[in-house]
Parts: sequence; structure tokens; C-alpha cells
Amino acid sequence: MKPLNIGLIGYGFMGRTHTNGYRQAPRFFDLEYHPVLKAVCARNEEKAKQFAEQQGYESVETDWRELLKRDDIDAVDVCTPNNLHKEISIAAAEAGKMVLCEKPLAMNTEEGIEMCEAVEKAGVRNMVWYNYRRVPAVTLAKQLIDEGRLGRIFHYRANFLQDWTINADVPQGGAATWRLDAEAAGSGVTGDLLAHCIDTALWLNGSIDDVSAVTETFVKERVHAETGEKTPVKIDDACAFHCHFKNGSLGLFESTRYARGHKALYTLEINGEHASIRWDLHDLHRLEYFDHSDDGIVRGWRSVHVTDGDQPYMGNWWVPGLQIGYEHTFVHQVADFLKSLESDQPAGPTFRDALETQRVCDAVLDSAATRSWKDVK
Amino acid sequence: MKPLNIGLIGYGFMGRTHTNGYRQAPRFFDLEYHPVLKAVCARNEEKAKQFAEQQGYESVETDWRELLKRDDIDAVDVCTPNNLHKEISIAAAEAGKMVLCEKPLAMNTEEGIEMCEAVEKAGVRNMVWYNYRRVPAVTLAKQLIDEGRLGRIFHYRANFLQDWTINADVPQGGAATWRLDAEAAGSGVTGDLLAHCIDTALWLNGSIDDVSAVTETFVKERVHAETGEKTPVKIDDACAFHCHFKNGSLGLFESTRYARGHKALYTLEINGEHASIRWDLHDLHRLEYFDHSDDGIVRGWRSVHVTDGDQPYMGNWWVPGLQIGYEHTFVHQVADFLKSLESDQPAGPTFRDALETQRVCDAVLDSAATRSWKDVK
Amino acid sequence: MKPLNIGLIGYGFMGRTHTNGYRQAPRFFDLEYHPVLKAVCARNEEKAKQFAEQQGYESVETDWRELLKRDDIDAVDVCTPNNLHKEISIAAAEAGKMVLCEKPLAMNTEEGIEMCEAVEKAGVRNMVWYNYRRVPAVTLAKQLIDEGRLGRIFHYRANFLQDWTINADVPQGGAATWRLDAEAAGSGVTGDLLAHCIDTALWLNGSIDDVSAVTETFVKERVHAETGEKTPVKIDDACAFHCHFKNGSLGLFESTRYARGHKALYTLEINGEHASIRWDLHDLHRLEYFDHSDDGIVRGWRSVHVTDGDQPYMGNWWVPGLQIGYEHTFVHQVADFLKSLESDQPAGPTFRDALETQRVCDAVLDSAATRSWKDVK
Amino acid sequence: MKPLNIGLIGYGFMGRTHTNGYRQAPRFFDLEYHPVLKAVCARNEEKAKQFAEQQGYESVETDWRELLKRDDIDAVDVCTPNNLHKEISIAAAEAGKMVLCEKPLAMNTEEGIEMCEAVEKAGVRNMVWYNYRRVPAVTLAKQLIDEGRLGRIFHYRANFLQDWTINADVPQGGAATWRLDAEAAGSGVTGDLLAHCIDTALWLNGSIDDVSAVTETFVKERVHAETGEKTPVKIDDACAFHCHFKNGSLGLFESTRYARGHKALYTLEINGEHASIRWDLHDLHRLEYFDHSDDGIVRGWRSVHVTDGDQPYMGNWWVPGLQIGYEHTFVHQVADFLKSLESDQPAGPTFRDALETQRVCDAVLDSAATRSWKDVK
Repeated sequence: MKPLNIGLIGYGFMGRTHTNGYRQAPRFFDLEYHPVLKAVCARNEEKAKQFAEQQGYESVETDWRELLKRDDIDAVDVCTPNNLHKEISIAAAEAGKMVLCEKPLAMNTEEGIEMCEAVEKAGVRNMVWYNYRRVPAVTLAKQLIDEGRLGRIFHYRANFLQDWTINADVPQGGAATWRLDAEAAGSGVTGDLLAHCIDTALWLNGSIDDVSAVTETFVKERVHAETGEKTPVKIDDACAFHCHFKNGSLGLFESTRYARGHKALYTLEINGEHASIRWDLHDLHRLEYFDHSDDGIVRGWRSVHVTDGDQPYMGNWWVPGLQIGYEHTFVHQVADFLKSLESDQPAGPTFRDALETQRVCDAVLDSAATRSWKDVK
Repeated sequence: MKPLNIGLIGYGFMGRTHTNGYRQAPRFFDLEYHPVLKAVCARNEEKAKQFAEQQGYESVETDWRELLKRDDIDAVDVCTPNNLHKEISIAAAEAGKMVLCEKPLAMNTEEGIEMCEAVEKAGVRNMVWYNYRRVPAVTLAKQLIDEGRLGRIFHYRANFLQDWTINADVPQGGAATWRLDAEAAGSGVTGDLLAHCIDTALWLNGSIDDVSAVTETFVKERVHAETGEKTPVKIDDACAFHCHFKNGSLGLFESTRYARGHKALYTLEINGEHASIRWDLHDLHRLEYFDHSDDGIVRGWRSVHVTDGDQPYMGNWWVPGLQIGYEHTFVHQVADFLKSLESDQPAGPTFRDALETQRVCDAVLDSAATRSWKDVK
Repeated sequence: MKPLNIGLIGYGFMGRTHTNGYRQAPRFFDLEYHPVLKAVCARNEEKAKQFAEQQGYESVETDWRELLKRDDIDAVDVCTPNNLHKEISIAAAEAGKMVLCEKPLAMNTEEGIEMCEAVEKAGVRNMVWYNYRRVPAVTLAKQLIDEGRLGRIFHYRANFLQDWTINADVPQGGAATWRLDAEAAGSGVTGDLLAHCIDTALWLNGSIDDVSAVTETFVKERVHAETGEKTPVKIDDACAFHCHFKNGSLGLFESTRYARGHKALYTLEINGEHASIRWDLHDLHRLEYFDHSDDGIVRGWRSVHVTDGDQPYMGNWWVPGLQIGYEHTFVHQVADFLKSLESDQPAGPTFRDALETQRVCDAVLDSAATRSWKDVK
Repeated sequence: MKPLNIGLIGYGFMGRTHTNGYRQAPRFFDLEYHPVLKAVCARNEEKAKQFAEQQGYESVETDWRELLKRDDIDAVDVCTPNNLHKEISIAAAEAGKMVLCEKPLAMNTEEGIEMCEAVEKAGVRNMVWYNYRRVPAVTLAKQLIDEGRLGRIFHYRANFLQDWTINADVPQGGAATWRLDAEAAGSGVTGDLLAHCIDTALWLNGSIDDVSAVTETFVKERVHAETGEKTPVKIDDACAFHCHFKNGSLGLFESTRYARGHKALYTLEINGEHASIRWDLHDLHRLEYFDHSDDGIVRGWRSVHVTDGDQPYMGNWWVPGLQIGYEHTFVHQVADFLKSLESDQPAGPTFRDALETQRVCDAVLDSAATRSWKDVK
């Protein structure tokens, strides 16, 4: 057993999910490397200490530059708002640390390119936390596609629907609502939610050639949590786009935080010549599968309860019929990352993989701004 | 094209569904015999005339004995409350008429035996309106079972849940609520709802050997619609029983009118060695099917949308994806009855078939009354 | 009771659904006017006679111009392929007949304008068969929106997914597959399927300002059923677009005949400030409704089984829990049309209403062809 | 922070779920007591060591009597087959240890009484692992019932359906399949699965007066894993019963391991005067709720996605829309047990609570054996 010393930067929602991944992975997967919760870093020392105590981190830092200097840190996990990803990731790479960066990779493609160059130049392991690839049902979808069960693909559609910002009194900025602040987040639903849909899509269906998008900001002004002043909202509240995939299929994507009744409904569907697949995050342990080769009179969408030992990741958990949850996607990603250290094969998505998602996001925002089709460059 | 002259007795809910069956069957099925709506019979002449006009009957009778005397009536359809089934059916048989009797066949087994003997002695065609056999999804279930797809059967379960009598102000007796009056109905949910479940079960899974039941009457007194007086409720509000089928499988049945939230939820499920089947009346156009021989990683319950041309009855309707409804079960039953006239093969369930359901109902009520297992005799 | 003499042109799938509507409406609704199936018209006399016999038409015509000359025809029902709608409708109007035209109204907006002018000039009643407005669940959605239950609308999305043309051996042209032939159909899924989605959307959510669309033709050549030769396919196999509604909401629409697993899945969803609504054609008797004002701990999407007497149209059918089907939408449309004759209020959608849908379809096709946003003119 | 030293006996499936509960509870709940994984005990030393290493136990014992002697153990967790529950639990109580015993409490009521007397005499904390009470959706159901939202209860039904023993080649006995061996398990589905249903029912709906049951053993002989010889199967493969609850409602329960297509489908439904509730284990994060007081035209079963911060336990996990899984029920039970140590209020179900479930199980088995109603004594 080899230790892998983790230094976590940021202790928010994502800090908790990643930490749980580090803690749980070696209990359920046979791994040579075991994560050690060495340090958590955040500007607010008191809160960082509370977090460290609750979650079991050995020490606390308040300046991420100090964290990077420490010899006892092998891997840096960047859980800050998006506007800090680039600076920290590049510095971590230059310090010779492995870098695990929260998604989206960067504020834009330009930043992402710099980040890729940094980790590749430094030759350090790197990964981006697009966790939904490791929902067992989604991993199973990938397996079915790779086996050729769907045949030629005609359609890919995905949406990510939420409703938590309908109330105009929700502020922007600050620790809890930085996702509504363009300065901290770069974009709204495009980088926050569509980026997830795009990452999965590129993984399952290959690259996207061009896009045509529309965005909307329904609430034009919100109080800023730090200044207390009403300021214009500069993020996209909603975004929809259609696109061409390189394989000839049509894509349709939508995301919003104004879809009353949907808490976090990430849905995807792929229609192939021979079979189709559907999945949604609200019942993440199920995969819907339609196989046209089934006998016609009993052909129908199958609701596959993905909890059997021969389905992805599930042999490491409980028994058939007993579902796992959201947090397990991070456990799986940690386990895969740790296993990748035993070989020279990286665990995806790497920074380079995530840069492709960034390029699509940029094309989407550009298309919406210019009301025209844009190639993904 | 040969006419089949219909005389309908009773113009209630069932009178309307049967009439629609007569009207629609020849428009959608290729039939040698075409029903002619010759006469409707009911004590209330004014209402009978309104019904005749709306539904297209040529004439009206107010005494069913007069109807039976008419030479221009080929088939008598008995849609009265249960307590009149025996007398009218036997008289109709003796008058040489075909008899189509609303379910349940009779008030009890004894009556049912007399009725069977009468129609068989007279040699007249006879049928009982257990319409759910002809929901396409249920007919498909029968086909799958007959093909041996399920293998050895372990379990059969069915329930019929309603909630319309929870309110203690609902009266008993009278035209609208005779189903709550033991004098008119014979029993409560057992004859009204469980009889449907039992008919389907006997058809799909064979005969029942013995039963152990419980009944309950939640509201003990109700105003009688005819007298205006509060009188004891003598029907069963709810009934549950388990049983052994002759094929070795266990049966579990339940019915109630006190299941808040269920309007008319008739659900059945059969678990076999190789496959299982589920169906419910609230989405009657779907059959759920689980086939254990499917590849394990994509095995799951299939939701079969029974609207294709190669599925039972559906070639006579619209195009795939477009559902039919409740009333079509009667259209199918009429079509099958009319087709049966072209051969010497009867259309089920005949009186004799329905007598088996009556025997189970009687055993169920007897078991509940005596708190003991009862053989079905 | 007053007769309304119907002359039907075309005896295909739609001819059957409309005829059923004429036959059933007066049996279930109280109507002053009763349709009389006076004549069916089609070029193939033998088939027309068969249809007339099966469906109960009194006579047959083989030239629609002869039908229009008959004094005993009050209303002409145009069920031909799209390329004949204009000529026949205008001639019918000029002959003083009411005109009930199958959807889409026309091959394009220009034709539609001529048709509107003709019926308005002649002062004849007119209606287009966008039948899905009269699914009880959809009519209920309209009622809920009109009552203001949803508040400000943010999103409207709809799609219509089929899979029947994936097989490249399906021909184009001819009686059965004229929908794949641009000469007869004008467009592919846009006029055939999206037109339905657009009609409902305009009715529920108001007018559309501009659109940005993409279309695709997956199978480039098909044998023509009439010539037997392989010829280029000129229709759109798939079409997606986003748009702005005048009320400020974003729209997202998609249609295809290449979505393996979906027979006729027309789905719509509306997200409002206070509530959301979902519906789909595969379970057309259900409306999903989310009401944010529900107590939070038990808040969730309600699956409303639209079969109660106080829900639209359902008081005319059976009892709660017993569903109706696809064909009933036409019965309702006939009933509403007949009732409209008793007043000076037209039954929608009129030709003028349907012209709006045509304008959107044209903008969609134009946008796809030019890869640019287009205003709906 | 106070340590609570855990000694776990048995390292099977339940050993893993409980251990995960000990590890995770203090990371997600604010607790004064923190579990310390002090020792795991099992006869097979090598396997015990592997388990200890993987799960983080400090030491290993191979004789549970030795474990009980250790001063550094505060609480003993009994995860053995059922036939050892009594002896170990009583000895642990006598050694002054808290006792957390896997369900069912005992092989029969007699044993259970002895166990209750032992823990009560010793005055030690005790609890039985009926974990499903702490599925957030089930806990929410309890809250709704306690608030009186359902009103008078008419019906309670529950079933637990599996299909893993249909194959006659599955052996009985041994480490993996002791649940099929009457010597080790006491009973079949009654103690294994129905006991869960009964525990929840008693908690939600109060005590049961009398029962009428049927059991079945479909596969009469199985190879014994230890002897390799085919021996008669003495457990119940399936069990169904109806019953009267003290509150006047009717109960209906069923369990089987022969329901093809169901992995672990524990379903419950309660029908009350004003509202009804449904839940199933295959989608454990959802509660279905029907409220009759909803406006009639939009009344329907609500699918409540139980992931909001104001729903039971969920404030300790992620954000709305992100589901938790099966294992979390044990985390909740550990958290509640640890919190109970801060007060003099026990965490249920205690041994005494679980004894009631045992009494019902015994009455059920007795009823089935004697084909008669049995009072729960």
C-alpha cells in the first residue's frame, strides 16, 4: 500500500464530495495507492479548521501557495470558483504536483490551453472532475456504444434542468452564489451545467463540429452578496443549442435554472439505428434501453436497474437491487485515478479531454452572442 | 352481411358500453354479422326513450317479458343489477334468444348453475361480459403464457382498488348506487371487482383449488337511496384472499373501494420461471414484460406500448403509438362474439366459464365468514 | 336535430379518424347538428366503395369537383395529401361549402393565405384538424394556463419522435408513403409532425417571434413507389429549432422519424414561475403537473389521470379511471365544430389560426436552409 | 468528542454495511460520540484480517467470547447468522456491552424474550438493525402519518419480492447461502424479508392483532454447501398473509424469492381517509403521495424526490436532486444511535421493539402450518 497525499483547495460542496471519494475508494476497491487527507486550504481559517476536523484532514493552510510548497503533498485538488482554476493549476503543475481540477476546466479556451500546456510540460498527472461519466448507468451506456449495439447514431440529446434561481431575491456572488456571478464563474448554465452534458456527449458520441445557440438571462439584476448592491446579471440563465457531431448525428442540448419542478434533472438520450439509450440523474441507478432486435410483440423500453455485480463498478458495492447514489461517482473517479497511477494510462477526462468541452462551451456562447452558427475550433 | 337484432335490457353505464361495442365492431372488424340496435328495455319509459334516441335504438320496451316475446330480437343483452340476471337470462334462453349477460353471472353459484343449465338446454349462444380479457395487453399476456414463455408459474397476484365509497354520505341502493346494496348486488367488491380479477386469473393461470379470505365493511350504515333511511351495510367494502392454483402457484388477490388515490386500478402480475408479466388498467395500453433470457447487463422490465398491428386486435385500429381506451374492450368482445357465430366455437367466457368465477367468489365469501380455508367446489 | 351532410375527400388513415368522429360525436355529446355520412370521394372507385360500405357512407364520388357540385353536401372534409389542400379547399369555399381541412393547412404560407382569403370571402365555416388540442389532458393544460396557475412562462419545449423511416428500404411517394415525397407533402417532419407541436404551442403559449433551425436528411435516396426508381429524398428527416415566444419565454422543438424506440412520442413541457406541466402522447390520458405552492416536504410532480367528469370532455365518456384513446380527439373536435354552428363563434383552429403555424414552419425551413435566424412573418 | 469502541462479530454483507455506517456517520452528522473500529471477530482468521485491513479495524478476534472480555470494547455488533444472535447478545449484555444486533432479533419469540430480559436486566443500550426505517422517504412517511395527514387508515400493504433462488442449483447452508438453511436462519422469507416489512408496518401503523398466512416451498431439495448432499429444504420460499391491525385497518403482506424480475423490491402502501403513501426500495429516494385535498382537476399521485434539506436526514448530505443510496440507511441508524447516547432516550427499534416483529413472524408461521387464523401473542 502506497500513500497518496492530498492537498485540497476549497471546502465547499465539491470539497466534500471529493473528500468522501478519497475516504471511501480504498474501502471498496482494491487499490495500491491510498489517499491520505493531508491538508485542506482555504482563506477562512476557522471554517477550514472545522472542515478539517469533520472530514479528517490532518492540517490546514490559508494560502494555496504555501500548500504548493509542502513536500508532503502529492496531489492538489482544485475546488475553488472557476476564476482561480488556471492560476492554481499551473502553479501546482510547476510545483510538480498532480492536479485534479474541478470542472469546468477554465474560464475559457485560452486559459484551458495554458493549463494543458503546463501540466503536459511538467509531466504531472491531471484530471478534471466531470463525475457523471462514472455513474454506473452512464458507464454502461459507454460500454454498449463501444460494443456497437446502437449502430449508426442519428440523435443525441441532453438537458440539465434546475429551478433554484427563479426567485429574483437570490443574490449573485459570494461563497454560496458565486455561480451567478460572471466574474467568478465565467458563464452561467453553460459552464456549470451544459459542460457536464457536453463532456458526457463527447465521451459517448465523439466530437462536435459546429453549434447554433441561444442564451437568455431572465432576471436582469440581482443584489451582489459582497457589495449588497443591485448589479446587472451577466451570466446566462438558460442556454440551448443544436449541433452537428462529426459522426453525422444531430445534437440538441438545453440547460436552465428556471425549469420549475426540476431540481437537478440531467437527462441524456441517444438514438441509434439498432438501439436507443436514455438516462437521467434523478434516478441515476437506472438505464433505459430499447433494442430493436427484440421480438416485436414484446419490444419496449427496458428499465435496467443497474445494481448487478457484472455492471460497471457495482461488483464493489452491495447486492442486486440496492442502489448507490450521487456521491459514489466521485468514489469511482478517485478509484480510477488511483488505479491509473499503477500504469502509464491516464484516467479521463484529462485536462486535454476537458479542453474539448471548453471549446464547445466557447463556441456555444459565441454563437449565442452573434446569432450565428460557429465552428468548434 | 347478416343482421343480428339486439335487445338491450338496462341503459346504465354498461348499457352504454355494450351499445358502443355493437355500433363500432362492424366499422373496424370484417364481420359477417352486423348488430342492429332493435330495442332497449327499461322500466322508466322516458329515460329509455332518451337513451334510444341518443344511442340509436329503433324501439323501446318497458317490460322485459314483452321484449322476449318479440320475433325481431335475436340476442338479449342483460345489463340489469345482479339480482335480475338469473330470471331474465333463463327466460331469454327459454325464448330461444342468445343471451349476453353482464358480470358477475349471478348472485351465487346456485343461481349460476341454473342459468348454465338453461342456456345449454336451450342450445342458445351465451356469453358473460368479463371485458378485461380483451384489453390487447391482457390478450397478449395470454398469448405469451400459451407460448410457454413464462415456464413454471410461481405467483399470480391481482388487485382492484377504488376509492369512491370512502365518503360515508354515499348512499346504498337505487339506480346509481345499487352496487352498495346487498339485495341488488349480492356482494360488494367480491362480485363487482374481484370477479374481474378472478375471471382473468382463471383464463391466464388455470383453476383455483382453495382459498383463505378476509372481508371488511368499513362504513357500517348508509342511507338507502330508495327509503331515505339509514340501514346496515351488508356488502363487503374490502376483500383479500390468498389461494392455491392447480398448477402449484400461489395466488394473492385484493379489492377495496377504500384505497384513496386509486380510481379503478386493476393490476395483475404473473411471475414465472423464465419471465414475468405486469399490467394495470390505469395505463391499459401497456404491458410490462421481464425476460430472464435477456443479456444480463441490459436486462430489465420492458414497457411494451401495445399499439402495433401484430399485437392483439391492434391491426384493426390506428397506427403504432396511438392508444385505444377502455370502451374498445367491449368492441372486441362484440367482434369476437359475432365471429363466433360464423363457426361452432363459442366466444368466451360463456356462462359455464363464468360459473367457475362464481364458485371462487362463493368460496371466498364463505372463507371470510367462517375464518377458514375453503375448497373451490 | 338538424342534419349536417358530410362529403369526405380521401379515405386513408385520416379519413377513418374523421369518420369515426362524425359517427361517435352525437352519441356522446348533446348536439343540435348531427353529421350524416353523405359521400366519400376518391379516385379509386372500388376502394372508395369498400370504404363507404365499411364506414357507412351513403354514396361514392370519384371526382371531387362532382362532389362539390352536389346540393346535398354541407361540409367538405379534405383528407388528401397536402399538395391538394389548396385547390380543393378554395373550390369548396367558392361552392359555399364549409371546409374542414386536414393539417398542415397548406404546402406553404403563400398557399395558406390564398386559402384563408377564399373561406373568409365566401363566409364559410372552416377548421383545420390539429386534433391534439382536444386531448383532455392538453385541453386541461390550456385551462390551467388561462387560469394563471403557471405565472410567467420561462420555457416551452416539445418534440415529436418516431422511428418508422430508419429502414432505407421504405419507399417514398405513392398512397402509403406520400409523406416522404416532397412533391406531395411539401416538407418532411416539419409539416407532418412539428406542425402539430407548433399549433399546440401557439395555442398554449402565444406567438413566436423568430426561430433558428437545423434540418437533416439521413437517407439520401429512396425508391419512388410510383416509378420504382431510386430518387433523391427532398424532405427533412429531422428538424430541430429554438425560438423566442412573444411572451419572453424560450422555445425548443425537435422532430424526427429516426428516434429508435419511439412510435409517436409527442411530448410537451411548459415551465412557469409557479407551476410546470408535462404531457406525452404515448400516455395521453395523463397530465403531469408540478405546483410550487405545495407544501415543500411533499412537493413533487403529480401524475394526473385525466378521466374525471370535471376534467375537459371526460364527463361525456365513462367513469373515473377508465381511459379514452387517440380517436377521441377527433370526436371532440367534431363535437366542438358542431356546437360552434349553434353560435357565431368559430371552432379553432380555423384556417386563419393554422396559417400562423404555417408561417412558423416556413420560417423554420428557411432558417435551416440559410443557417440563420429568421423572423416569423 | 468521545470515542465509542466497536467490536463487530461477522464480516459478511451486513458487517460491511454497518462498518460503513460507523465510518461515515461522524463525517456527515454532528455527533458527540465517534465510533472507533476496534476489532472484528470471525472464525476464519485470514478472512477476518483481510476484512480488518480493507475496512480499517484495529484488531482481529477469532472467538467472540474473547472479544466480549476486552475492556476496550464498548459496543458489540452481532452480524452472525440468526442462530447465534441469542447466545452472543445475552453474553454481551452480561459483559456490560451495548448490543447492536442484526435482524431478525432471534430464531423465535422465546429466544427474543430471553434476549430482551438480558439487555434490560443488564441495563445496556440495545438496537436491532431494521434499517429501512431510516430511508429518508420512509422516515418522511412516518412524519406525515404522525402529523395526521392520512386520517383514518383503511389499508396497509407491503411486499418484498426477490428472484435469486429460482435456480434449483443454488445450494443451502454455508457462508453464502445460510439464509436457505433452516438450522441457521430459523425461517426463510418470513424472517429474512417479511420481518423488514413487519417492522416498518408496526412502526407506521401500530400493532397487529391476528394473522392468516400461507407459505410455500417451491424447490423441495437443495444440495447443502457444507455436506455436499441433497437435503430437504425446510425454509419457506414464499409467504403471504392478511391481518387486522389494532387501528381497524386491513393488512396484506407477501414475500418471495421466486418473483422473476424483482431483485429486492420492498414495496409498501398505506391508504388513509385523506391521503395515501407508496414507497419502494428499487427507487428508495422517492415517495409517492396522494392528497385528496388537492384541487380535483389536478389531483394525482405526487412523485416526491426526497433530496431536499428539509426532508429527513437530507440536510446532512448533498443538494436537492442528488440522491443517496441503500448504505445511507445504516449511516442514519448509527447517527441516531450515537445521538441517543447523549440522552436517556433509546434509538429504535430496541430489542423490545423487535420482539413485536418476532411475535408477528411466529404467528404467521404458526398460521401457515395450521391453516388457521392466529392471534399475535
